[in-house]
Amino acid sequence: MPLQYKIKIPKSTIDRMPLYHRCLSIMEENGITETSSQVLGLRVGVDPSVIRKDLAWFGELGKRGVGYNVPYLRQAIAEALGLNKDWPIILVGAGKLGSALADHNQKYVKHFQLVGIFDRDPAKHGRQVGGLTVRPMEDLPGVVKEHNVKMAMIAVPAKEAQAVAHVLVKAGIKGILSFAPISLSVPEDVLVYNSDYHLDLQRMAYFIDNRFDGGVG
Amino acid sequence: MPLQYKIKIPKSTIDRMPLYHRCLSIMEENGITETSSQVLGLRVGVDPSVIRKDLAWFGELGKRGVGYNVPYLRQAIAEALGLNKDWPIILVGAGKLGSALADHNQKYVKHFQLVGIFDRDPAKHGRQVGGLTVRPMEDLPGVVKEHNVKMAMIAVPAKEAQAVAHVLVKAGIKGILSFAPISLSVPEDVLVYNSDYHLDLQRMAYFIDNRFDGGVG
Repeated sequence: MPLQYKIKIPKSTIDRMPLYHRCLSIMEENGITETSSQVLGLRVGVDPSVIRKDLAWFGELGKRGVGYNVPYLRQAIAEALGLNKDWPIILVGAGKLGSALADHNQKYVKHFQLVGIFDRDPAKHGRQVGGLTVRPMEDLPGVVKEHNVKMAMIAVPAKEAQAVAHVLVKAGIKGILSFAPISLSVPEDVLVYNSDYHLDLQRMAYFIDNRFDGGVG
Repeated sequence: MPLQYKIKIPKSTIDRMPLYHRCLSIMEENGITETSSQVLGLRVGVDPSVIRKDLAWFGELGKRGVGYNVPYLRQAIAEALGLNKDWPIILVGAGKLGSALADHNQKYVKHFQLVGIFDRDPAKHGRQVGGLTVRPMEDLPGVVKEHNVKMAMIAVPAKEAQAVAHVLVKAGIKGILSFAPISLSVPEDVLVYNSDYHLDLQRMAYFIDNRFDGGVG
């Protein structure tokens, strides 16, 4: 049975779009107004022909032989991905990693606003992390309902992550970004992304071993 | 100018191989001995035809109509990627995120051994993090040379990251995994991977908005 999506755009295309968006945002901040699939390709480490195919899903965004207007393309991608919308998110786990994520989110992350941080450890309850107060797990379903939260991040030890995923699914969460180094079992209508820098180390090791010559990942 | 690599295997293939390896490792731990590109595809969120093409770069790893032997395929990928080799790595930044990374690395990460943690803040020097003592930046070139380190992780604030990258490049580092939310400028022979969970949040938001139906990222 192949992967099935209700939408037509391939998952691999959607997975690359935020890379293009980030690259274009940086160009825009630096006053760069024109670019090409070649330049974008070098910056994000994706073949220019793949970039052109990806962008074609979203209509005529550039001119053949002329290239792309940076602010226009960035805005078009933001609209296509729904990046101009604000999403409430929650975080489970207020240890070192969870605290670092909450601080980082408060400082840098636009459009994804942390509305709750939860931990099962009573010693952490009441602590201020990323501008929020750490709350017990029992409060989670109420916060999810109140803010209509669809997305959650998990930053707990590997052996606790599956139980947390179960609580999140029961509360109505549809997307989980897990920092725990295990594979989570969830129902089919719940999406799991694993954030695992270990995989990036493995990729880098390969390219260094094989005398990789330039490029940005 | 298109992307140029000395090796033939596409970067996108190499980027996916560690996903397959992780998935196969989990299967192997759970006693699963046979699999198919369909099952792997569902688990890692990659189209089965892409998986078959990726694996074909590394020779005849499965049998048509029979599928793949899990331990054999996992081992073949590990050998192809050089995952059985040990790599010394260093970390710059001993704040919340850096400490979490060091602890996580010590607990979970095989084959990438942290041999040095550095921070420019004197208040952090001498602290124990992930089983190592935090050292001043001045010690970095010596440690890189002593252990023949090729890879480094950066966990410092955005505004300090470029200066740190410069120090790393000068010391001879060839691969940088950056957790700072900026784009780093490095020479062409240095590889940068950005670990940015914000991109995963954007991807999830798209799929939730567009009623994504199942799958694991």
